[in-house]
Amino acid sequence: MLMYGYFNGSILPVEQIAFGVTDLGLLRGFGLFDYFRTYNGRPFQWDWYWERFANSAAKMHLPVPINKEEAYRVVMELVTKSRQPDIAVRFVMTGGYSPDSISVVNPNLLIMAEEIHPTPPSQYEEGIKVILDEYVREMAEVKSTDYKRVILLAQAIRSARASDVLYQKKGEISELSRSNFFIFKGDRLITPNRHILHGITRRTVMHLAQNDFTVEEGRVMLSDLYDADEAFTTSSTKKVLPIVQVGDLTIGDGKPGKRTQFLLDQFNELIGNW
Amino acid sequence: MLMYGYFNGSILPVEQIAFGVTDLGLLRGFGLFDYFRTYNGRPFQWDWYWERFANSAAKMHLPVPINKEEAYRVVMELVTKSRQPDIAVRFVMTGGYSPDSISVVNPNLLIMAEEIHPTPPSQYEEGIKVILDEYVREMAEVKSTDYKRVILLAQAIRSARASDVLYQKKGEISELSRSNFFIFKGDRLITPNRHILHGITRRTVMHLAQNDFTVEEGRVMLSDLYDADEAFTTSSTKKVLPIVQVGDLTIGDGKPGKRTQFLLDQFNELIGNW
Repeated sequence: MLMYGYFNGSILPVEQIAFGVTDLGLLRGFGLFDYFRTYNGRPFQWDWYWERFANSAAKMHLPVPINKEEAYRVVMELVTKSRQPDIAVRFVMTGGYSPDSISVVNPNLLIMAEEIHPTPPSQYEEGIKVILDEYVREMAEVKSTDYKRVILLAQAIRSARASDVLYQKKGEISELSRSNFFIFKGDRLITPNRHILHGITRRTVMHLAQNDFTVEEGRVMLSDLYDADEAFTTSSTKKVLPIVQVGDLTIGDGKPGKRTQFLLDQFNELIGNW
Repeated sequence: MLMYGYFNGSILPVEQIAFGVTDLGLLRGFGLFDYFRTYNGRPFQWDWYWERFANSAAKMHLPVPINKEEAYRVVMELVTKSRQPDIAVRFVMTGGYSPDSISVVNPNLLIMAEEIHPTPPSQYEEGIKVILDEYVREMAEVKSTDYKRVILLAQAIRSARASDVLYQKKGEISELSRSNFFIFKGDRLITPNRHILHGITRRTVMHLAQNDFTVEEGRVMLSDLYDADEAFTTSSTKKVLPIVQVGDLTIGDGKPGKRTQFLLDQFNELIGNW
């Protein structure tokens, strides 16, 4: 499928876009990104995604070379050109081309359309297993490009027949590699609020949940998993995905929980009407 | 100046080399590198640099798609094509192009010639100032591309009229942003041995120093700076560069020390005969 991207002012087929070898994202890992999808041809939660992207950029001291309205027009042009009902959109901004491989001059900004890789239905039906890792992301609140850790854990995840990794540090749970974490204890919905990237789907789900549950942001310890009734993870591609096993520990009765299913249904209703 | 690079099997002018947008170095910060220079047209400490590059790759679970002899031939061809007496050479290897922006398939390997940016002579004559930062690099022993921290500190370094940053964690000194750290207490030469990248210039200088000084690898605490007579940093471009101020603290008498100068002379003699 032919996808398009915007790179420093021009829209081109993605295959024709490339970063030169002095880019600081490439040479020094100095980059940030964001990622969202469209529903019914419109970007989901655009205001929140843009706000987060702009915040990440500010925390990395990079000026965004495009304003919100221009960025929206680019996204809509990518939607039109893709000839798909819906696409994923990735923003990638790096420190740009550097004369000495360390100094920032002008950032490089890429906005590209991507095919959506939907989560397999079986994962919603059965729930997923995650492994544990003692780790906390550097600058977790910034959506930097630093995902070395999960790529290094790929083999460990496969060996455990798991789908992802749940990070904890000294027993305090933060997040999965690319998604947020929630537990239910009865009708209390609890989610970590530090050392995390504040997900847009997390925020959406917290809004949806507040009518029916007590929503709490705070510390979630490994020990909280023992009496959790349900657990799930949220992201733009996973939506609300049940977690039924963490390492060797089975959550609740080992099946996706009914409250999790209720939130997934609410979420699906929201995006159906987006 | 026209420089050349080798990218996945081909040698081209550097301007014609580019990374596609699904590269994991770019999207996920999943990359490693190495960097050395030639003296008299021959790569300095080639065996040690190759060994370190191969070790970094192994620790990032990436197979090196070229063997040592082939890599040496590439380096020598870049030397010839550059028509310079001496060049710097940068190896960059990333997780390669990914079908789903997270899975590694085949790494991308770039080997490129760069102009040498020599350290200004005034820095050798006057010594440099560094600021302190509480930080330890993730996977410090691997030469990954993760240098976000020092790029974020660029403004702080400039404001302090300093040249670089010295990392410490809970009072234990590790390294500068891109170079190693040494102190002299009398004729004892001491350098940190953990949470560091094991520099090739560091290793070379430790060899050179052992005839005239007691060389110790071990913990160096901030408190050790108070009675240090001299301090310096080592790297392939800095060689042996005196440090005369760390934050607000003046080292020794605030001038480059005579033992540091002795080691710089020894190093210059070694490279003169390389």
